Amino acid sequence: MPLLVPRWPAWLFWWRAACTRRAFVQQRMWAGATRISGLGGPAGALGTSPLVRRGSSSASSSAPGVRLTRDRYPMQRLPFSVVSEDDLAALERIIPGRVITDPEELEAPNVDWLRTVRGSSKVLLRPRTSQEVAQILRYCHERNLAVNPQGGNTGLVGGSTPVFDEIVLSTALMSQVLSFHDVSGVLVCQAGCVLEELSRYVEERGFVMPLDLGAKGSCHIGGNVATNAGGLRFLRYGSLRGTVLGLEVVLADGTLLNCLTSLRKDNTGYDLKQLFIGSEGTLGVITAVSILCPPKPSAVNVAFLGCPGFAEVLQTFSTGRRLLGEILSAFEFMDAECLQLVGRHLHLTNPVQESPFYVLIETSGSGADHDAEKLSSFLEQVQGSGLVTDGTLATDQRRIQALWALRERISEALSHDGYVYKYDLSLPLDRLYDLVDDLRARLGPSAKHVVGYGHLGDGNLHLNVTAEAFCESLLGALEPYVYEWTAGSGAASVPSTAWASRRGMSSATASPPRPCGSCSSSRPSWTPKAS
Amino acid sequence: MPLLVPRWPAWLFWWRAACTRRAFVQQRMWAGATRISGLGGPAGALGTSPLVRRGSSSASSSAPGVRLTRDRYPMQRLPFSVVSEDDLAALERIIPGRVITDPEELEAPNVDWLRTVRGSSKVLLRPRTSQEVAQILRYCHERNLAVNPQGGNTGLVGGSTPVFDEIVLSTALMSQVLSFHDVSGVLVCQAGCVLEELSRYVEERGFVMPLDLGAKGSCHIGGNVATNAGGLRFLRYGSLRGTVLGLEVVLADGTLLNCLTSLRKDNTGYDLKQLFIGSEGTLGVITAVSILCPPKPSAVNVAFLGCPGFAEVLQTFSTGRRLLGEILSAFEFMDAECLQLVGRHLHLTNPVQESPFYVLIETSGSGADHDAEKLSSFLEQVQGSGLVTDGTLATDQRRIQALWALRERISEALSHDGYVYKYDLSLPLDRLYDLVDDLRARLGPSAKHVVGYGHLGDGNLHLNVTAEAFCESLLGALEPYVYEWTAGSGAASVPSTAWASRRGMSSATASPPRPCGSCSSSRPSWTPKAS
Repeated sequence: MPLLVPRWPAWLFWWRAACTRRAFVQQRMWAGATRISGLGGPAGALGTSPLVRRGSSSASSSAPGVRLTRDRYPMQRLPFSVVSEDDLAALERIIPGRVITDPEELEAPNVDWLRTVRGSSKVLLRPRTSQEVAQILRYCHERNLAVNPQGGNTGLVGGSTPVFDEIVLSTALMSQVLSFHDVSGVLVCQAGCVLEELSRYVEERGFVMPLDLGAKGSCHIGGNVATNAGGLRFLRYGSLRGTVLGLEVVLADGTLLNCLTSLRKDNTGYDLKQLFIGSEGTLGVITAVSILCPPKPSAVNVAFLGCPGFAEVLQTFSTGRRLLGEILSAFEFMDAECLQLVGRHLHLTNPVQESPFYVLIETSGSGADHDAEKLSSFLEQVQGSGLVTDGTLATDQRRIQALWALRERISEALSHDGYVYKYDLSLPLDRLYDLVDDLRARLGPSAKHVVGYGHLGDGNLHLNVTAEAFCESLLGALEPYVYEWTAGSGAASVPSTAWASRRGMSSATASPPRPCGSCSSSRPSWTPKAS
Repeated sequence: MPLLVPRWPAWLFWWRAACTRRAFVQQRMWAGATRISGLGGPAGALGTSPLVRRGSSSASSSAPGVRLTRDRYPMQRLPFSVVSEDDLAALERIIPGRVITDPEELEAPNVDWLRTVRGSSKVLLRPRTSQEVAQILRYCHERNLAVNPQGGNTGLVGGSTPVFDEIVLSTALMSQVLSFHDVSGVLVCQAGCVLEELSRYVEERGFVMPLDLGAKGSCHIGGNVATNAGGLRFLRYGSLRGTVLGLEVVLADGTLLNCLTSLRKDNTGYDLKQLFIGSEGTLGVITAVSILCPPKPSAVNVAFLGCPGFAEVLQTFSTGRRLLGEILSAFEFMDAECLQLVGRHLHLTNPVQESPFYVLIETSGSGADHDAEKLSSFLEQVQGSGLVTDGTLATDQRRIQALWALRERISEALSHDGYVYKYDLSLPLDRLYDLVDDLRARLGPSAKHVVGYGHLGDGNLHLNVTAEAFCESLLGALEPYVYEWTAGSGAASVPSTAWASRRGMSSATASPPRPCGSCSSSRPSWTPKAS
């Protein structure tokens, strides 16, 4: 029986390669969207700014202005060894020519995509096989060297970059598809496969990946699984806990754990792989993934609607679930401020009348006419009952992408607005938006904007607060208030800022930031427990 | 941090309340099936035998003829304490009036539904709350008393009954619905709720339970989760690993572990509840479940088709996935012998021409006309290409039930055929039926029938071998051959006979049965490893 828990503190696993961000327009790969008559709205009035994609190197090829994490936060390095010349030689023997020490090449893996945190790693390792990963980890374990596994480094919470001088273990060269079964749709691949490339691969064979997210152009499937990424297809295909059939994992001491079954149902023994899904690399490094791909839908439609209030958003959701049933594949919402920011910073035009809330609804099914009829009857109902005041419908690929851009580029627009405090929370549906209203009142003018958007299908609120610059007193007003509010709201969840994430993953090294007293903005009083 | 693994051998947890059997017609609760023109077949020619339901008490109210497990198999009782008068008094203080010692009342929980195994427990406990379960386990842990948790006792692998004199801890009185959210469809209930009652409860509110199985009238949701039951809706709604949102569990030492979140997405910390799904009660007793219920489909159709070979069954499945897409909700197959046995023992009539294989396809969706059109186009395609030689279609409730009976009552028909060796295997789709052919050749006349049926959607083969009576030499020819064949077929899975199950769950007490030499039937030679 292999060890499941690495011998803390001999290891430091931070792997946050996947993320919840949908900052950029993802190329929607499904074919065959058809046009049906729908609600009004100025067709073609959407923005024309070029579609930007997140690349692992583009954001972090150089890092001027990004302070070292160890300088920014009061952190203590744990007593790990420091990489020696002997270590480099030993690692070079394991992966000849793939031990990188060039400071320029190390800039990118040391900085996160949001440019919030920066490590000072001096070694980047690029294994190609699970066996190489196992040998590397065994060696580092014996030498007490800290390791930071890294996938696409697209995470928004600073979990994929080193804090100090951890060795970066990259899955970038582990990008082989190992097998695909074209009856069952089971894909087996290495952990470093880029999600978008896998999407393309299975779509050519009549299937789709069961997950999709804004960072798909860079994020690795191993990171997606390690962070239990939800994303845009969660509503339709459910969580990775159901669609990931098997994993191969290397534990901290180099033990290779093979749970790489490709059976849809496997009740033999304990389902150990579940421990690694969402464990953020703290229990081991995922090296290969077996995942069930659903058949590709032949018809996709997208509606963008304005709602007079959040209660109406919820009722529109209920109506959609009832009338669209099995073809409902996404149900996203955003508030008015989100759309204003997308307009101001990215010049995208709101295609419907201004409303307090907007929803984006996607259907995908196997019969274009059937789907169009269902959508039509749904739209009649929500319009007739006043749940929706205005809307527009897209059935062709270009318009579908343009509507998705309004939702997917909110995060990008926010980053143009200043420093962004980001929270990714799961809340009961009926209280999903209360926290946004509450924070607006609490923070007052100390925040530029407080906005809320997210996936209604899985009760996921993206709460974002912008300010001119990072300010510890604003942070102090946000945390732990946001967490306590969430925990007190009946059911809790966390993911959040770099800080909270780091705190959760290595409580030994990180302590919560304290107000520095140097910020002049009005500082709201601290309330230990939200009502 | 509570202990996750009970201090073996201080505890003996066997909980196999749920099962994979579909012996009886389950009342299909979905409304609104509509009639469409379809393939031929003698309508109304299906059997008329009364629908029998499995009741936990009916099968085991007395147990003449069922040998004690300890006499039948060479097993050694572990050094647990024996229940004393003091223990009974202490337990009575925890659950006054619910400590049962009446031998007549203890007959039922001591015998499994198949009447294969029989324990000699002298105490049955009926707690009502998780706190009572915690107190009971804490007490038994301190006193080194063995405990056998029991749900509906509907299991077919002997996992839900005591082997020796373990205390039976029944969840029968833990049958309260704790909450239901009519927007999200999240149901929270105690572990002893009967699946069918939960189905009725959520269907009245416009939802369905994400799982359904033949034993629904008796099995408990806690047992379903503890055994990670798949069942008839797996193809559509996926596994319990995705639909179970939270669990409350009492560990062996009485620690209450609350993972009873009702959030659809929750990435805070490790997902500990996953450890208990499918762990068969070996890690703790599930006391409450939070589960996501999908909206109730308004249209259901069932087609029953004959196929000329297993290759055609697989191609029909691929075609169905493509053309029926999101409305395909069940895809079951059975071989010719299955249907002959159903006809011989239960007088159900085959509604289509005799064929080597049959498939039962169910669609469920939100638009009756749309579904009918999709199904019609699918049927045209499979008939036209020769994949299907004959078929019949049901759109009304009565006919739908009658067609389902052909599939669901196979297990019942088998039990009329003699002693049944049952195996429940997960296999790669292309090799799913090979083992049946292989075993027919291997066993020759020593078996009455070797049949195969199951869920194609999740690659699940129900392999059944009948004989006039239990015979150890036949068992010796089957095991470990079947397991080794399965393991050698590229990907493995087990669940199986009472023996294999017990062996898997408590290797310390059980050892594989040896040929007794008393059976006169021709005994096939033993092959250690299948080709």
